[in-house]
Amino acid sequence: MDFKVNSKILEKLLSRVIPAVPVRTPMPILENFLFELKDGQLNVCATDLEVSLRSSINVAASEDLSIVVPARLIYEVIRSLEDTQINFSFESNSKLKLTTDKGTYFISYSPSEDFPEIPSVSMTKEILINGKDMKKAIDQTSFAMSKEDMRPAMTGTLLEFTPDGLKFVTTDGHRLVRFINKNIKTGSEEHYIVPERAIAVLTKLLGETDVKIYLGKSNILFNIADIEFISRLIGEKYPAYNSVIPLENENLLKVNRAELISTIKRMMLFSSSGSKQVKFSISKDSLTVSSEDIDLGSSGVENLTCEYKGDSMDIGFNTQYVNDILTHLDDDEVMFKLHSPTKACIIEPEDVLEGEEIMLLLMPVRLNS
Amino acid sequence: MDFKVNSKILEKLLSRVIPAVPVRTPMPILENFLFELKDGQLNVCATDLEVSLRSSINVAASEDLSIVVPARLIYEVIRSLEDTQINFSFESNSKLKLTTDKGTYFISYSPSEDFPEIPSVSMTKEILINGKDMKKAIDQTSFAMSKEDMRPAMTGTLLEFTPDGLKFVTTDGHRLVRFINKNIKTGSEEHYIVPERAIAVLTKLLGETDVKIYLGKSNILFNIADIEFISRLIGEKYPAYNSVIPLENENLLKVNRAELISTIKRMMLFSSSGSKQVKFSISKDSLTVSSEDIDLGSSGVENLTCEYKGDSMDIGFNTQYVNDILTHLDDDEVMFKLHSPTKACIIEPEDVLEGEEIMLLLMPVRLNS
Repeated sequence: MDFKVNSKILEKLLSRVIPAVPVRTPMPILENFLFELKDGQLNVCATDLEVSLRSSINVAASEDLSIVVPARLIYEVIRSLEDTQINFSFESNSKLKLTTDKGTYFISYSPSEDFPEIPSVSMTKEILINGKDMKKAIDQTSFAMSKEDMRPAMTGTLLEFTPDGLKFVTTDGHRLVRFINKNIKTGSEEHYIVPERAIAVLTKLLGETDVKIYLGKSNILFNIADIEFISRLIGEKYPAYNSVIPLENENLLKVNRAELISTIKRMMLFSSSGSKQVKFSISKDSLTVSSEDIDLGSSGVENLTCEYKGDSMDIGFNTQYVNDILTHLDDDEVMFKLHSPTKACIIEPEDVLEGEEIMLLLMPVRLNS
Repeated sequence: MDFKVNSKILEKLLSRVIPAVPVRTPMPILENFLFELKDGQLNVCATDLEVSLRSSINVAASEDLSIVVPARLIYEVIRSLEDTQINFSFESNSKLKLTTDKGTYFISYSPSEDFPEIPSVSMTKEILINGKDMKKAIDQTSFAMSKEDMRPAMTGTLLEFTPDGLKFVTTDGHRLVRFINKNIKTGSEEHYIVPERAIAVLTKLLGETDVKIYLGKSNILFNIADIEFISRLIGEKYPAYNSVIPLENENLLKVNRAELISTIKRMMLFSSSGSKQVKFSISKDSLTVSSEDIDLGSSGVENLTCEYKGDSMDIGFNTQYVNDILTHLDDDEVMFKLHSPTKACIIEPEDVLEGEEIMLLLMPVRLNS
């Protein structure tokens, strides 16, 4: 059983599927690609049981076949070849024989029986979203997913389909990000929680191409060009985050984002490694940002120009969280909407694109002293 | 006590000295810079007791002073500032106060008594070498230093001053590299072993500028522009490597270096992770390179065109070592000089620059089967 394939075309195919191969796993079978030859198509699958990737190319193969091959080995071998024709031949001794004009390579393959089945997603509900829009929503929200397993729902990204648009929500209890794409409207309200691992793989796959999303009970399928990406959904209840969002924060601080980032980066050097605290002392048109590490005896204080309408106030934040939020926006000016030193602060860019909405919420920390 | 300094000038000074600050050390004092103000000069030193770096700038300071400050903190703070004037002021409460037009920063300093003394090197013997020549010699030899502490001499680079030129020699017992710069001639023969850590720091410092080398009994000093770099020497006897170098290897294999590297990179994928063995099967104008991993059941074989004068032979090498050697040369063609499958092989570039000589020696490995 033979077929021929161009090395660069195969490399592209494998590079799309390899993100689903687990780096470490107690199940060695998952370190393989599933190669399925069927009706003149080469289907390549990989899965870590949480996420699965599948893509295919046409090949002139006369027979059908289903085997598994060591994923990293074959990927590295194909990647190391120049642009050349490769002859694939499946020998009866469980050896895959690759032949190019330069050399011959043997790789052991195994039968595919033990390879886990890729979950299927019923194709009833289909949503179309522009790849760049999807990527933007993920880029701006993914950093706030929780790293702690205590509350599994918060380790993923909430996709909330509503009549007002598609909402992407992440929170770790200290900060919350909600991005709304108002162009994706659905009749009914539906909630799905996509795990962090799937979000990480998605960012690698997303580009200009439109994405078709198919929603199942326990799985979600993303169809991006000729790639099928399936992820398990987190079957938990997402926290009722709306109740946390303050309705009216009347103290408004407008400040240049790049200048504040520059200041915050220095404050990260001076804040203590434990509390990571930074203090904003705000009064009319004046913002003083300071932090100190009592153990090291070091401290820093800077003054920034700003526009501020509201009561003078000292409020503390986690320096790292302020930095995360500021670096995930891209506007020149940013608005802090404050109520009091103990209540949630809302951060918003000055301008938002038509059809989009982004809201970042940051809980203050209690000031020491 | 005050002085002013430009942030970018100070950043450059600190960036030159920080390579000597140890990343981890049981002696916290070494995590500091020594700041010495003397006669209108700011001297900054760092040391890890093996290597020391010192550089200085002129500042308008009215008094003399000697203190230590946390190296990474002050370096990161200075680096994070834009191009600006900084006012340094040493407060009586052991606080260094930095003031810019934007902010004020305090960093604790300590007295300098506990900072180890930087060894001095008697300036009697001075050798001048072009920075680029020195860098080339190090780049082509340093990879073969031994990583094992069993024989301390081999963990460093041998600098051999001879009437024929300055020789740079490294070996780990499996391979040996000798680079000769014939333009640096000395009347007497002298040997110095420079530790790996010093070689690593040197490659960061070397550039276009000429290097002055001062040799002491137990230390070596490199003067590069306004940087003084001092390293301890390894006080051991270097192995008598000349006896290992075969005088006549009469079988000559000439092969394209880039093609062989490409083949070797694939063979690294197929060779077993234990032995890392690759087999060269050489006969007239034909080189077959092969490797296999018996445990995984994978193997690769490639044919390369070559010029070969000599007896047909099968010889085994460590794939990683062949790759190291080939990637540290830069010629199009490379020559393997062979004697037999059990004797050292010499690898040389086809052309060498006037005034230079490079010889790489590689021990073969016994072929299994």
